[in-house]
Amino acid sequence: MVVVMKPGSTKQQVEHVCKLVRELGLKDHVIEGTERTVVAVIGDDRNKDRSAFESVEGVDRVVPILAPYKMASREVKKERSVVPLILGQKGGATAGGKKVAVIAGPCSVESKSQLMDIAQAVKAGGAVGLRGGAFKPRTNPYSFQGLAEKGLELLATAREATGLAVVTEVMAVEQVPLVAKYADVLQVGARNMQNFNLLSAVGEQPKPVLLKRGMSATLEEFLLAAEYILSRGNQNVMLCERGIRTYEEYVRNTLALAAVPALQRASHLPVIVDPSQGTGKSYLVDSMCRASVAAGADGLIIEVHNDPEHALTDGAQSITPLMFNDMMKAVQRIAVAVDREM
Amino acid sequence: MVVVMKPGSTKQQVEHVCKLVRELGLKDHVIEGTERTVVAVIGDDRNKDRSAFESVEGVDRVVPILAPYKMASREVKKERSVVPLILGQKGGATAGGKKVAVIAGPCSVESKSQLMDIAQAVKAGGAVGLRGGAFKPRTNPYSFQGLAEKGLELLATAREATGLAVVTEVMAVEQVPLVAKYADVLQVGARNMQNFNLLSAVGEQPKPVLLKRGMSATLEEFLLAAEYILSRGNQNVMLCERGIRTYEEYVRNTLALAAVPALQRASHLPVIVDPSQGTGKSYLVDSMCRASVAAGADGLIIEVHNDPEHALTDGAQSITPLMFNDMMKAVQRIAVAVDREM
Amino acid sequence: MVVVMKPGSTKQQVEHVCKLVRELGLKDHVIEGTERTVVAVIGDDRNKDRSAFESVEGVDRVVPILAPYKMASREVKKERSVVPLILGQKGGATAGGKKVAVIAGPCSVESKSQLMDIAQAVKAGGAVGLRGGAFKPRTNPYSFQGLAEKGLELLATAREATGLAVVTEVMAVEQVPLVAKYADVLQVGARNMQNFNLLSAVGEQPKPVLLKRGMSATLEEFLLAAEYILSRGNQNVMLCERGIRTYEEYVRNTLALAAVPALQRASHLPVIVDPSQGTGKSYLVDSMCRASVAAGADGLIIEVHNDPEHALTDGAQSITPLMFNDMMKAVQRIAVAVDREM
Amino acid sequence: MVVVMKPGSTKQQVEHVCKLVRELGLKDHVIEGTERTVVAVIGDDRNKDRSAFESVEGVDRVVPILAPYKMASREVKKERSVVPLILGQKGGATAGGKKVAVIAGPCSVESKSQLMDIAQAVKAGGAVGLRGGAFKPRTNPYSFQGLAEKGLELLATAREATGLAVVTEVMAVEQVPLVAKYADVLQVGARNMQNFNLLSAVGEQPKPVLLKRGMSATLEEFLLAAEYILSRGNQNVMLCERGIRTYEEYVRNTLALAAVPALQRASHLPVIVDPSQGTGKSYLVDSMCRASVAAGADGLIIEVHNDPEHALTDGAQSITPLMFNDMMKAVQRIAVAVDREM
Repeated sequence: MVVVMKPGSTKQQVEHVCKLVRELGLKDHVIEGTERTVVAVIGDDRNKDRSAFESVEGVDRVVPILAPYKMASREVKKERSVVPLILGQKGGATAGGKKVAVIAGPCSVESKSQLMDIAQAVKAGGAVGLRGGAFKPRTNPYSFQGLAEKGLELLATAREATGLAVVTEVMAVEQVPLVAKYADVLQVGARNMQNFNLLSAVGEQPKPVLLKRGMSATLEEFLLAAEYILSRGNQNVMLCERGIRTYEEYVRNTLALAAVPALQRASHLPVIVDPSQGTGKSYLVDSMCRASVAAGADGLIIEVHNDPEHALTDGAQSITPLMFNDMMKAVQRIAVAVDREM
Repeated sequence: MVVVMKPGSTKQQVEHVCKLVRELGLKDHVIEGTERTVVAVIGDDRNKDRSAFESVEGVDRVVPILAPYKMASREVKKERSVVPLILGQKGGATAGGKKVAVIAGPCSVESKSQLMDIAQAVKAGGAVGLRGGAFKPRTNPYSFQGLAEKGLELLATAREATGLAVVTEVMAVEQVPLVAKYADVLQVGARNMQNFNLLSAVGEQPKPVLLKRGMSATLEEFLLAAEYILSRGNQNVMLCERGIRTYEEYVRNTLALAAVPALQRASHLPVIVDPSQGTGKSYLVDSMCRASVAAGADGLIIEVHNDPEHALTDGAQSITPLMFNDMMKAVQRIAVAVDREM
Repeated sequence: MVVVMKPGSTKQQVEHVCKLVRELGLKDHVIEGTERTVVAVIGDDRNKDRSAFESVEGVDRVVPILAPYKMASREVKKERSVVPLILGQKGGATAGGKKVAVIAGPCSVESKSQLMDIAQAVKAGGAVGLRGGAFKPRTNPYSFQGLAEKGLELLATAREATGLAVVTEVMAVEQVPLVAKYADVLQVGARNMQNFNLLSAVGEQPKPVLLKRGMSATLEEFLLAAEYILSRGNQNVMLCERGIRTYEEYVRNTLALAAVPALQRASHLPVIVDPSQGTGKSYLVDSMCRASVAAGADGLIIEVHNDPEHALTDGAQSITPLMFNDMMKAVQRIAVAVDREM
Repeated sequence: MVVVMKPGSTKQQVEHVCKLVRELGLKDHVIEGTERTVVAVIGDDRNKDRSAFESVEGVDRVVPILAPYKMASREVKKERSVVPLILGQKGGATAGGKKVAVIAGPCSVESKSQLMDIAQAVKAGGAVGLRGGAFKPRTNPYSFQGLAEKGLELLATAREATGLAVVTEVMAVEQVPLVAKYADVLQVGARNMQNFNLLSAVGEQPKPVLLKRGMSATLEEFLLAAEYILSRGNQNVMLCERGIRTYEEYVRNTLALAAVPALQRASHLPVIVDPSQGTGKSYLVDSMCRASVAAGADGLIIEVHNDPEHALTDGAQSITPLMFNDMMKAVQRIAVAVDREM
């Protein structure tokens, strides 16, 4: 970090900062500028409370230099990670390699026939994973909360019928064993991106994790959430950009596609995009799928419903199997144009 | 809700919308405007997935009319709620009445001497509650994570010594019994505002809950989070405005003080302000405490540290006992000016 | 619009609202819901101050139904507009047709050799327009402010040498005649998107206008800004998405690519994307160019500099002629994949 | 500034950065950390394009150290500026001294009787300035655009009748002489905060300027806009916080009251708050006026209308003369509580 002193800070104040730096086991290096003195701090200060320096007299502000995450960083691991969707499956679908992984399915598992219809349709369209919520994080306590274990069983049945990897959300520490029993990929939702107990719990089990970016998370916070999982021992983490909250009013979220190359520059982890949550409007999903793959996304996760008018959740952003099929054909052409496969 | 049709929508499309409305047990009412047709929907549609209508052909968008929360609403309960800080204590401190409740203490419980010093100082300054984190939600997995149960014990000791109500964060469902054993008020942090399992769990136990607004939560989402707790049976909920994430760079968060009167207009629940998290800068805390009380806040929660330079967490936004004392004198004058007491 | 009454509003209050509606020459239609009464207002209320209704007793809020813009709207003009880059040039470059128009060049015109080198390079790479600032809107009053008329002359010289259409910013009403004398396309910058006098002035002259979205403009405000120009008589307007201000910290702006299909859905005007301003980082430009065209953009505007290290402005986001060339090859493949040409 | 190199940057790359630093007439100072090398740059780099360094090979990013503004800074002028509302008037109203200056009046000047009624009412309530728009920046080209010179004449008439200082907006360079002829204070609106030609023009005339913060301006950008005016020779600048654009939906803008002490810390210029624009809701104005003064604001600017239901603009956020009177009494008590006068 660099500690920037106020103009007119005294020699004593600078010395006091240096003393505090050394107390932390770090090395101080004073630079007297024409208008300001700064104290450059040498050594790994990742785990220190840098903010404490801002309360020291004569200090104006503190500028961090080192990124706080390590295992998620490309500095530590240069080659891109390839994450299997089904752990231990030989030759199975992966994210992070040459193939763009498409995961599709309903927002919520509603019934056997609904799930089977959709699963078969997205399989036919080229998906390799089946999404579907059994435990639903609902903003409104009176809304449909999901079928719980019954939903997980239906997902497992759909996997047997189609071979698709099952991707489903786990909302709480105590659900982890149950969800891990049925699912292939555990999804941590945007609202839980900083539920650190949950991050630790999914990090302590082996199944791959799809980590969604928090609604207003910075990339640094996002990668630190991934670091929680990685540091608990699970290396199979996929990052998912799903739109951020901004002032924009024509979308539910603003899909920040520059996050795709920016994350790939900072981290070795695969980056998936969710254009359904990322826009909230079914008529924007198609073009955002194309744009995501053009931007270099390693995968897509998309809400598909066979009867959006009667969907119990997220009807406005679900596309039909027909639209999914058309979209896949269009995205296939984009994938080729960026030397990827589907 | 009002369903707005696209210009040029057909009669069949409008009729189809009406049919879907009736399927939900609601009443439709078609209004043909000069440019657009809208379908007004009559009846309680709170628990319906309104968004599904947006996927219907000919529909442009859906406008909700009814607020989705009920128990948190002033429409249901006109008089303001007064929440005790210590459940069952007669004549004890409350939030929501004439007195402005001040809760103060360190970000983290670090040691017995640290906590006792600060507790006695804030008690002397006029606080009625003691804050202090035992379980710390840390963005960085390598940072200090709190003293856990040891920290809770120290908080209980400090309560015995000072009579201050203990306010501390609970981060996960499985921590609820333990935290509820020691604490007087259970705090749900901003990162957990939409951890719905946790909300339900604190709603199913009796101790008062301080619910912090999520980093980018709307007031509607905030009140729906409160509704989760209320609907599980716990009526002792305090709302806490703690700053929101915006593009602003000179603060850690943007303290949205208009949320205070806006929440009080929409809800009967008391509103507390956290100017420490809400700015992230100790030099802004004093003026924001004054402004909060002037705006009508029912309480303040403030980070105080006896040695901010060596604080293990949040040093930059902690004020010293001396600054706390000065601030309390200034706020006292504001309280009088708005016909409140401290 | 729909006027939503408060719960418990009186009959007199509803009648008073109806009276105000009729005073405006509009028709009222009262709908009594189970919890709320709403007054649907029939007729064109675009030019009325709807907000005044919010100050009426018993009114909770007002919901607009009609989009306030007309000429910019697809409701008025269904077929997409094709805007020439050089007015009156037969068979010249256009935006809004099958071909994706690429405009490239330095942020600022710095010298003849700089401009000529870059112009020739981008021409060779496939650009049809040359961008370059002669009048520079600089945040800092002490920064380089552009070469003014001298810069315009150099741009005209570069056009003669290359045939590229000259696109350059006009910052003030009094500059319009001068800039229009030299430029082919007048650019209105993001900071001036709501400089309504300037919008009117460029609307009253015939040359095409490239209108940049304001830093935090909604799509409605953006289209209303276009409406200013259109309503003054100039139909040759191009919309330019250039990133919005959000809390994101790894980019200068958040490029909101869903705005491309959303604008094309709401309006017939061509949509250009600026990935240079839209990210602020040269290493993100390439992937965002691909994503823009995949999303359906009608054109790109890109900052290219032959010596970014010594650029007087925007060095961090300028790509070199070599990078431009590589990018164009990659984007060409994307264009083919979405049935466009370059 | 500090130039942060990438991990693994080569010695040649560091040397190249140093060479570029010296080319700019600045001094380089290399610090080799344990993981990163940084180059501290010594000297005044305010007018340099720091961003160019980000395009240099081996550079990760550039961290500015010096604030880019000078004349607006407290580092240059420690004592607070006191700005007269009426230039040259002895003992007249000022902003920045002990007295809190209240400016009130209609959003738009609509007619003589409207303006006179309101002017007399706000004068009686304790205002020292009269606001009222003659040139109105309207988002919608079809909305009421103000009475122009006729409105200015009415404002001058109201000043004669009441002695209130006239504060009115100037929207364009060519309007400056006309507006300056009638007005006491020239207001630059939020939409024009980065209309640099207009800033220069109001800086080249002597009348005081009320500069509104742009809708999404950082404090640095805001102070740089003030610097434009100051650097052109006009020292009578007042800063006005008027709310920023965020994701919040219950207000038109989010009033960022921490900006008041933060601006006063960074700058010597007086800070005025606009709770009308800053919330957009008349029922939030009263509490935000109190909070603003409690936070240390040097003045308030408030929209008052004698018939908000029929206001031509901004009806929803205008308070009535009666509400103004009550608010002034409440704010008066707050002013006393913070040792200010009204």
